[in-house]
Amino acid sequence: MSKLINSPRDYVDEMLNGLVLAHPSLIRHGTSGRVIRRVDGPVAGKVGVVSGGGSGHLPLFTGYVGPGLLDACSVGNVFEGPNVASCSEAIAAADTGKGVLCLYGNYGGDRMNFNMACEMAEMEGIETTTVLGTDDIASADADQIGKRRGVAGIIYAYKAAGAAAEAGGTLADVTEIACRTVERTRTLGFALAPCTVPGAAGPTFELPDGEIEMGMGIHGEPGIWRDRIKPADALADEMVERLLASAPASTGTRLSLLVNSLGATPLEELYILYRRVAAQLGAAGWEIVAPLVGRYTTSMEMAGASLSLCFLDDEIENLLQAPSSCPFWRVG
Amino acid sequence: MSKLINSPRDYVDEMLNGLVLAHPSLIRHGTSGRVIRRVDGPVAGKVGVVSGGGSGHLPLFTGYVGPGLLDACSVGNVFEGPNVASCSEAIAAADTGKGVLCLYGNYGGDRMNFNMACEMAEMEGIETTTVLGTDDIASADADQIGKRRGVAGIIYAYKAAGAAAEAGGTLADVTEIACRTVERTRTLGFALAPCTVPGAAGPTFELPDGEIEMGMGIHGEPGIWRDRIKPADALADEMVERLLASAPASTGTRLSLLVNSLGATPLEELYILYRRVAAQLGAAGWEIVAPLVGRYTTSMEMAGASLSLCFLDDEIENLLQAPSSCPFWRVG
Repeated sequence: MSKLINSPRDYVDEMLNGLVLAHPSLIRHGTSGRVIRRVDGPVAGKVGVVSGGGSGHLPLFTGYVGPGLLDACSVGNVFEGPNVASCSEAIAAADTGKGVLCLYGNYGGDRMNFNMACEMAEMEGIETTTVLGTDDIASADADQIGKRRGVAGIIYAYKAAGAAAEAGGTLADVTEIACRTVERTRTLGFALAPCTVPGAAGPTFELPDGEIEMGMGIHGEPGIWRDRIKPADALADEMVERLLASAPASTGTRLSLLVNSLGATPLEELYILYRRVAAQLGAAGWEIVAPLVGRYTTSMEMAGASLSLCFLDDEIENLLQAPSSCPFWRVG
Repeated sequence: MSKLINSPRDYVDEMLNGLVLAHPSLIRHGTSGRVIRRVDGPVAGKVGVVSGGGSGHLPLFTGYVGPGLLDACSVGNVFEGPNVASCSEAIAAADTGKGVLCLYGNYGGDRMNFNMACEMAEMEGIETTTVLGTDDIASADADQIGKRRGVAGIIYAYKAAGAAAEAGGTLADVTEIACRTVERTRTLGFALAPCTVPGAAGPTFELPDGEIEMGMGIHGEPGIWRDRIKPADALADEMVERLLASAPASTGTRLSLLVNSLGATPLEELYILYRRVAAQLGAAGWEIVAPLVGRYTTSMEMAGASLSLCFLDDEIENLLQAPSSCPFWRVG
């Protein structure tokens, strides 16, 4: 598909310039401008919450910077982890002496660079902790949860950890709540059509028109099965079944639910999916709280959708409902 | 592109069911459920503001139903105007004796059915007025503004009229502000790839990969020129020049700006476009107020974008900034 760009080389920087121009609550920061932070941050006395990752997933990650959510994000090139310098600068930008939680998706490059940045921060006297998003149930089996990738469900951890930090939690408190929210969140997605990285010779993967790949990752990582597209209700039923089968133990009766477009798949189709998913969850005895439907984690113009369940306890539910302000989190 | 649906026949009704399940502030209404109205409406003593149109453009039209915005919307099939019955039911659902403004896009089918519904409403003692969205400068020349179609810019009129009604304006007041906002709003869009109506044999139009059609309408109506895709900045410059050349007389120095994706075009590209548009408007002496960047008026998975300018006066600016609540209007 044709892209509305100037040159692949300028893609990320021009995108970030537009982002901060359109949203004055955000500002570019750092020697190469590859950090987005709150214009009013850091907030004295508050634990910092930082994320980061490759570009091409808006509104992830930078769209969730704001009061009650993230303090700063490091920004990589398209589908590439952020470099060590930008991770360090994001951590420093969020620090006010109370420590910083680094909360990001479980990808090798991101992990390596954030780990190095955390070591350097510790040497400078900034206490850091790390929690990895691992919500994608298609990316590894249940006995290898630590190998699972982080996808759309990480926004639940952003919201819970951000609210806990805003409420005055210690670094240990905020880290624990992020960890618990990740542990209680499960995502499964599917692809209907690929995207193309700016400047690449072709799309990130091949998927013939009319076919679907269940469980495919947001960078085109291989999924569980590939077949002709099925009716939305059949897909909803399979996804709900797989997600509930992978639920953590002792999860209560309430959950939040995110039906997310990977990009091109329109809102109309998300609502068709939502309708069936909500009915199936209701039939299974689950009460749905503050559902989200829209584009929360994308891969540019990739077509497909994902379904995330966040199994609530009272504390996580209260934190998800706490006030926050950013360009892209909305409930209702 | 593969669609996430069950059957073309059930597309609209299943979509509406999902919409109201996900957003409890909205409810389906009317004999065939083809009206979306505020669950807490109608609000006694308030002028009603109603819109409507074909499906496939979410969040237009139904996503803008809420306090400070629309009271009700009639909903047609994909790319088809709503029927007379649903227009009548939307008007009746919004009426509390103060009259109802019908504010919708300038399309033949919509006009015919709303006109008939208004005549019937008048016979039942409901006073109605009509304002048509005519913001698309590519759809007719300046000397035939009444022939221009309504596209994304109509949301500015929704917001201003909705806020005026919420503030206690009379039907004449609310109608005048809607009319003035339409008169001060201009939109120009372009297509990069078509969408497909559910159940149709093929896409709504042909546009070879790598080509762009400037001025194409949201249903594939013919535009101004077709060529190979150009750099984003060149497109921004042309669009700003055409929009400013078509500005109404005596418009002050402040404007709001909507950079809208038609569906598949991702946020990253909208920000790249926004950056240049904002710079060019600034260089031309315009101050930008409360810009919007995102998907506000789509054609399902169509690729492309549109740019809307709303030339402000003090009253319209205050109304755009007034509190409102709906699933899809956001500023900041």
